This record gives sequence, structure tokens and C-alpha cells, in this order.
Amino acid sequence: MTETARANLENLYRIFTVPEAPDSTLGAIDQAITKNVADFLQKHVVALERSLDDIEKDFSTSHIPDEPTFVSDYTQFVKEKLVAQSVHTAAPGFIGHMTSALPYFMLPLSRIMTALNQNLVKVETSKAFTPLERQVLAMLHRLIYAQADSFYQQWIHDSRHALGAFCSGGTIANITALWAARNHLCSAQGDFQGLAVEGMHRTLEYLDCEGLAILVSRRGHYSLGKAADLLGIGRKYLIHVDTDVNNRIDMQCLRDEYNKLKQQNIRVLALVGIAGTTETGHVDPLEAMADFTAEIGCHFHIDAAWGGPTLFSDTHRHLVKGIERADSVTIDAHKQLYVPMGAGMVLFKDPHTLTAIEHHANYILREGSKDLGSHTLEGSRPGKAMLVHAGLSIIGRRGYELLIDQGIDKARRFAEMIVQHPNFELITAPELNILTYRYHPEWLQQQMTSLDSHRRQLVNQLLDQLTREIQKRQREAGKTFVSRTRLRSVVYGTEQITVFRVVLANPLATEAILDAVLEEQQEIVSAADLQTILSSVAEICQSAVQNG
Amino acid sequence: MTETARANLENLYRIFTVPEAPDSTLGAIDQAITKNVADFLQKHVVALERSLDDIEKDFSTSHIPDEPTFVSDYTQFVKEKLVAQSVHTAAPGFIGHMTSALPYFMLPLSRIMTALNQNLVKVETSKAFTPLERQVLAMLHRLIYAQADSFYQQWIHDSRHALGAFCSGGTIANITALWAARNHLCSAQGDFQGLAVEGMHRTLEYLDCEGLAILVSRRGHYSLGKAADLLGIGRKYLIHVDTDVNNRIDMQCLRDEYNKLKQQNIRVLALVGIAGTTETGHVDPLEAMADFTAEIGCHFHIDAAWGGPTLFSDTHRHLVKGIERADSVTIDAHKQLYVPMGAGMVLFKDPHTLTAIEHHANYILREGSKDLGSHTLEGSRPGKAMLVHAGLSIIGRRGYELLIDQGIDKARRFAEMIVQHPNFELITAPELNILTYRYHPEWLQQQMTSLDSHRRQLVNQLLDQLTREIQKRQREAGKTFVSRTRLRSVVYGTEQITVFRVVLANPLATEAILDAVLEEQQEIVSAADLQTILSSVAEICQSAVQNG
Repeated sequence: MTETARANLENLYRIFTVPEAPDSTLGAIDQAITKNVADFLQKHVVALERSLDDIEKDFSTSHIPDEPTFVSDYTQFVKEKLVAQSVHTAAPGFIGHMTSALPYFMLPLSRIMTALNQNLVKVETSKAFTPLERQVLAMLHRLIYAQADSFYQQWIHDSRHALGAFCSGGTIANITALWAARNHLCSAQGDFQGLAVEGMHRTLEYLDCEGLAILVSRRGHYSLGKAADLLGIGRKYLIHVDTDVNNRIDMQCLRDEYNKLKQQNIRVLALVGIAGTTETGHVDPLEAMADFTAEIGCHFHIDAAWGGPTLFSDTHRHLVKGIERADSVTIDAHKQLYVPMGAGMVLFKDPHTLTAIEHHANYILREGSKDLGSHTLEGSRPGKAMLVHAGLSIIGRRGYELLIDQGIDKARRFAEMIVQHPNFELITAPELNILTYRYHPEWLQQQMTSLDSHRRQLVNQLLDQLTREIQKRQREAGKTFVSRTRLRSVVYGTEQITVFRVVLANPLATEAILDAVLEEQQEIVSAADLQTILSSVAEICQSAVQNG
Repeated sequence: MTETARANLENLYRIFTVPEAPDSTLGAIDQAITKNVADFLQKHVVALERSLDDIEKDFSTSHIPDEPTFVSDYTQFVKEKLVAQSVHTAAPGFIGHMTSALPYFMLPLSRIMTALNQNLVKVETSKAFTPLERQVLAMLHRLIYAQADSFYQQWIHDSRHALGAFCSGGTIANITALWAARNHLCSAQGDFQGLAVEGMHRTLEYLDCEGLAILVSRRGHYSLGKAADLLGIGRKYLIHVDTDVNNRIDMQCLRDEYNKLKQQNIRVLALVGIAGTTETGHVDPLEAMADFTAEIGCHFHIDAAWGGPTLFSDTHRHLVKGIERADSVTIDAHKQLYVPMGAGMVLFKDPHTLTAIEHHANYILREGSKDLGSHTLEGSRPGKAMLVHAGLSIIGRRGYELLIDQGIDKARRFAEMIVQHPNFELITAPELNILTYRYHPEWLQQQMTSLDSHRRQLVNQLLDQLTREIQKRQREAGKTFVSRTRLRSVVYGTEQITVFRVVLANPLATEAILDAVLEEQQEIVSAADLQTILSSVAEICQSAVQNG
């Protein structure tokens, strides 16, 4: 080996070695980063104003550098080009999406998780993390299903069964639930080896039906469309049922859709209830849905990715009543359990259901082993369950209850603020802690009701444009952030309108900040080009008066 | 609000607030954890000896605690019950699985990633992380496909197309590849709306065929079975083709299987090549497979989750020649890119392929947006791409080349050590950095060849038992660790035998450690009960001599 080669190799070994002293170069960088991160987190700014096109220039080469870079130089790059240009999802003014602040203790604990680099697919690379993950699944199972102690004693560490599966997020959780439901419905019998082995085509021939269907309300999360596609069911067999005035599935429409499917010889695989729709935070009539699934005999899945932790609240638990009757429930820990990104779960009422997707291999997941990987969609997975365990332990039930309660209270107060404000219109009132609204000036509100439907539609289109512009400019200004979506409002019939969407999960979001959000939106509207939009609206109203 | 309620709320706010001074309680705990992690990482022990049953007792309650716990108490619990009982995957003696040491700089950088808590599903919650992830995908794409600068300039940040998808791991990467391939093959045409919309059943009716099939060698990763199940194809249509003496797909058998499928009117959806099989590290004849897929017209996917980074090595790149002809390639960053657990990627030669799985929603992933989530199986995802970016930048091509080269060299030296050792038998020689072997004492090796097939089978069963016991005891002793699997060896025909499996990716695993692994295995065999197994073997040999 040459001198250079030896030197290179030694350098290489060094980066894999833990710095022994905190005053080593790496140790110092490490401490500087900790401080830098703390500084960043203390800033109450959502994002710096710089366009994506411009940011892309810093990430435009496709060449992997030949030679190594010093960690210190790279850290500098990260600080200037990445951290500074990130979205401050933890800022109290960032109330537009479901990602919010993290409890600070999550940071040092995440470091432990990363450093241990356990792989939860098998005991041989996780050991204590395997029982820990099973415990977390049991805790969440109990939160939902409240079975007896003896039930959990029997199943918590039973290697052949699973109370649920840990996933990278709610999408994988929903897919896992529907995968298990599909395979369970179409399991082996006689000569038929089951859908898992024989595939969809033969299964439908065997069942002598034209298709399998999944029913969900119009507010169903887009991951269900992916699931229908992925599972070979087909997106057109994901039936979006109409909703009532409160964005909840309409039970009569559900029954009608079911009857239509029956006439077409299409079998219902699953009904999906939503406990906290992504866009409006509403909860489906879970009890009625449970009755209906019992009647027609299909899997009942509840997507409680957002609303699941409402179960912690003595005051608001009733809102998700019926969740305990679901066959499976999705909960995202990176949402209202305040765990860093990448932690979802699906819980199954019956510990046998997941055997429908069980799989084995020769080098791991051997039959009878305690390897978690035999019941998960994913393979290698990090030990994120540890952070859920930490949240449940450190915050506790009472802590989560407080978080849920204050979020719902704050959403209600914000709704009142919007209702009382002359220039805003509340579109969907909060049932949990999500609401939608739009800018709608007082003078227009007075005239809107008397407009004919054609003019009303034109006005709404202009308001949509206004809402879109306000949302974009507010985001770009970077002080506060709300998101936007399009939905049907009861007031405007089947017409879809564009609205601001607000999610109130960050405990540090104060009423003063909510006030500032509305204030800033009003200010944005005063821009000349947006005033032009409003002039067009005024002209339409004017023409109505003249014609009237 | 009562006094207690107010106090509770204040406590709650505090945990979401960043400690300003390093000498605050949380700051101190944070520093202590950093030190504790460093201490743990410096220990060269694989795991402490404590049975899983015993460890489970620490994780046996299914009750979520009502009241909060102090962070300091919880940290103590983590140190004693979790960290101490984890598997030290970074220990140089842990050479049994694909998880090994991390470069130390990954820890502070992971902290940044966690603290920023970006959600890569959409620009609104990631900003600079979105172009960064697209850059990383372009870099890996270039490593594999080496297209011209103009190609990358055109596609790197093109919102309607994707050079690949970032995933939580290789399983999701493989599923994504086959999902895209399936939908691409069965895309909309005339009245037919495509498989994504119409489902498998109608698609096969439309295509007028009996099934879709995926072909892979017997060494294919178990995630492909999950994919066949999940995608509605059926596990029996995942055809496991026989391998040659080097665990590579046998091209004649492949052709035979293809012809059989054709006769049954089953269409081949994809051929999967393996660049580094999980169990033996062998690489399929990729060039010949590429020719074959061109001939029959199907998607060519390569599972290079393990072997992809071999492309960094000028010396060994030829081993994966042909990879550039694949339609899609899986690479796991948490394997040979030395990134913490939970980072996989799938790259597509043609930037249009992923449009086959494109999806949209109203509140994000709007048509034309730069949101990454419109082309991924997962929804919300953390910014793991940053850590790949860090590895590629800090280690560089030359650094990764060194890592690859030293791994392969070391595997070859270990293979020589085994061959030269009287009491061990090399089962599969390393092509990359993975090998398998077993304990097989000299006196038995001499007699084995002359045994009749029945006796040889009996002896192999006893040796299997011995291998299993040695592996278990070595793991439990916790000084060093190899894994085990079952596979066919050329020497013993179609019989499956149990073997030790060694993966040499940790740059700190020295030859002295490899020596110690063999030494320890010999020591374990000296236990009385294992000697009894060997006595039974001796009796069988004896009976053969007497009968012969």
C-alpha cells in the first residue's frame, strides 16, 4: 500500500470513530450545531423570502464530488443554504399544516435513536427496541380499544400475532390496513390459495364478483386512492360518498352507493371512516358506520391519523365515539403525538388480522421468531417507536389531554374571531382543531346572497383567485403561514371554492398570532393588483343591481 | 382557569420551548446524553447477555402513564433499559447483518434534520429540502446511468417528472419500481382507463391474459414477495428462477420459465436482477438479463439495495456492469452509503416512468406544483435526503471507493482464512463483501465425500443444528456476531444447509476481529452438548465405514 493510500484509509477510519474529547474538531462542530439549531428554533419566522427557483441554483449539480469535503465546510453550507432556507414548521405562526413544534426533549432522544442505529425488522439488530415497539403498539391499542389487562398480557409480546404495525407514516398505515383487510376477506379456502398467492384476477373469478370496492366520504385522504391503485383494486372502485353539511359521510348516500355496487356484483371490501379529515378536521358518524359495516359484513377501518389523540381528552373524547368498533385504526405519531416526522401506526382490534399479510425469509423473520418484520409492509425500519414511548411517558395522558383541549379551544376562539370580523367568512367551523375560511369583504357579503347563481359563480372564481394570491404572498413573506385547499361549502351548493386552511396544533400559537394572521391578510389585499380583482367583483355586483 | 390548570399549561409550554442556556436542566441532560451516546459507541461489545424474555418485562405494561415523567428520570430509564439492551450494530465485531458503523458526522447532522422537522411531501413544509432531495436523486441517477449534463439540466428540477423516489427503505423502493412498471405496462388506451383506475381484474380481461408475472432468481429479496402480494399480482406469479453455481440466475432456466408462462398466456411484467444478493452478495448476469428483457419486452428492475455503491470503485465497478441498462434501480442509503436507518431510493432511467403512479390532492400536490409527494408511495416523509447529501459531499466518490474496496478485500481475506482453517468450510465465496461458511471439522471433511447421500443428509442435518447453536450462543455472548441463513450449496446438490453469513461493511472490523470470530466459534463447539452432536456425526461416519 502506498503512503497516500494508507493516509486516505486512516482518514476514513477517523470519520467512523467517535470523538473522545468534546474539544476535538468534530466535538466542537457538534456543539456548534446544537447551538445553531437552538438559535434557529428560537426564531419566530416561518421562512426567509427567497424563491424556489433561486434556491434550486444551490442544488443544481448532478455530479457527486470526487474529493472529500471538511465537515466544518459542509456544516457551513448546511447552515447557509439549507437551514436558512427551510420552512420553520415549529414557528408559532406556522398554522397551515399538520406539522408543528416538537417538545425539545425529542432532540437529544432522537440523537440516541440515530446513534444506536437499530433496525427494527429483526431482533438481531434491535433487541430491547423490539419489545419496546410492541409495548407502544399495545399502549395505543389500549387507548383505542380498552381491552382487559388479561388481553394485553396475552398478546403484547406474542410473536405469532401483532396488535398493529409501526410505519413511516399514515399512508403506509392506511395501505397496511386495507392490504390486511383485502387478504383477510380473500383468504385461502379449499383449492383456492387466497389472494396473496393467487392474485386479484383469480380471486375475483373464485369469488364470482366483478370487483372489490372501498367506500369513504369525499373528504377521504388521498392515500386511499394510492391504496386502491397499489392493491390492484382500481381507483374507480374507491367510492367517494357525498357528505352532509358538516363534511361527514351521508349515511343515506352511503347506503345508496352500497346498493349500486351490489347490483353491479361488486363486493365491498372495506368502509373507511375518518376521525379528523385532513382538510376540515371533521369526524364521520363512526357509530352509525360501525352499525352499517356490521350489517353488510365488511372491514371497518378508521383513518384517525389526525384525530386519534382526541381520545386523551375527557372533554372531547365523545367526538370520536365509535372508534373502538373499528377493525383497524391509523394514528400518526408525527402529528398530534408531537414526535418527529416519520412515525405512523396502524392498530388492529383482532391480533389475528395481520397474519393475512405474514411473510418469512430464511435469514430473518423465521417462523416463530419475534422479528417485527414479518408483519410490516416496510422492511428495515428505524427505532422511532422509542420517541413515541418517550412522548407517552414524559408528557403522559394528562399532558396530551391539555394539548388536545387547548388546540380545540383555540380553534373555536379563532372561528369566533373570523365570524366577528367584517371582512372574513368562516367556511367550515372547527369540530377538532382545524377550520377553513376566506377573505370576503363586508360589502360583498351583503350583496352575495342576492346574486343570481351565474354571477355568484363568477364572483366566487374571483375570490378563489384572491385567496390563492393572499395565501402565496403570505407564505412568501414568511411571517405567518396558512395553507389553502378547495372544497364544497354548504352555502354555495356543489360549487368548489378555494379557502384558507388552519391547523391549530402548536401550543405556542397565541391569540395574538391568530390576530396577526388576519391582519396580514387584510394588508396583502390592499396591494393594487388584488384591489383590481375586487373591482371586478364590484362590477359584477353592480351589473346585477342594474339588471335587477 | 384554576391555578393548577394554569401551572399545567405553563409546564406544557415549557417543554415546547428551546432551552436558552446550556446549563439549564434540559441543556444539561442534552449534553449528558451526547456523552453517554459517545461512551456507548466506544464500547466494542455487540450486546449484553440478557434474554429477550427477561427484557420484555421492562416493556410489559400497556397502560399509558397518566401523569408526566421528568425528562431526567426518563433518560435514566432509556440508558439502563434501552441503550444497555440494544444491539451495538456499530461494533467492529458485529459482522452479521447489513447495518454497521455510521460516520460520526451523521449524528450532529441528524440532529439538524430532526430539529427542522421538514416534511418532504410538499414544498410548503420543506422548501430547500425539496431541491436538495431532487439533487440527491440526480446524483445517484448519474452514478448509475451517466447521462449527459444537458439531460440533468433538463430534468433535475422538472416538477412534472422525477428521476426517482426517495423511500423509507429498499422494500418500498422495490415496490415503487414494480408499481410503476405495472401501471406503465397497463396504461390507459382508448376506452380502457388503465390499471390504476380499473384494477387488476378488468386489466387482465382487457389484455386478454391469465396473469402478470415477475421473474427473479431464487436469491431474490423477500420484499419482492410482498410486492407481488400487495400489487394484486399474487405470490405464485413471482417466479423464482434457479441459480447457477455462483448464486446467479441461470439464463437457460430463465428462458424456460418465460416459455412456460407464455404457454399459459401469462404476461411477464418485469424481470428483476440482483446486484448483491442479501444472503450471499452475488451479482446476476446483468448484461445477459438486459438483452433478454429487450428481446421479450418487459421492465428490467435491478435490486442494488446492497451492491449499488460498488459503482464508486474503479477496481470493482465491472462487477455490476449492465446496471445502466435497467429501467429502474433500488439503492439503500442506509446500507453502503452509511446513512442512518430509514433511507432508500429508487431511480428510473426514463424521467417519465413515475408518471404512471402520479397522484394529486386539493390541498397539496396540486398539478404543476414542485411537491415531491405526487410521485412517492409514502406521504409525509422526513428530510433523510440531507444525510445522503452529507455523505456524498463529505466522504466523496473517492471515500466511498475506499470503503467499497476495503470491504471486498477484507471479505476475500476472510474467505482465505476460512479455506485455510482446518475446521471451517467456505460455502459461498465473496463476489462483493458477503460470504457464507460453516463449522465443519477436518476429520469430517475427509469422510464426508465418501458418504452415501442418505448419511450425508443426516450429517448435514446435525451440522445444521450445530451451526444454529453456535450462532445463537455467539450472539448471546455478545462479543461478536454473525448471522445465519439456509441455502443450497453446489457441493450438496438441492439440499438446503444452514450457514453462517458474514457482511463486511464496517471499516473498523479488523483481521484480528475476524480471527476472533472463528476462535470463538471453535470455543463454543467445545461445550459438552455440542460435542454430543459431533459424536452422533462420528457414529454415522463410523457406521458407513463398517457397512462399506
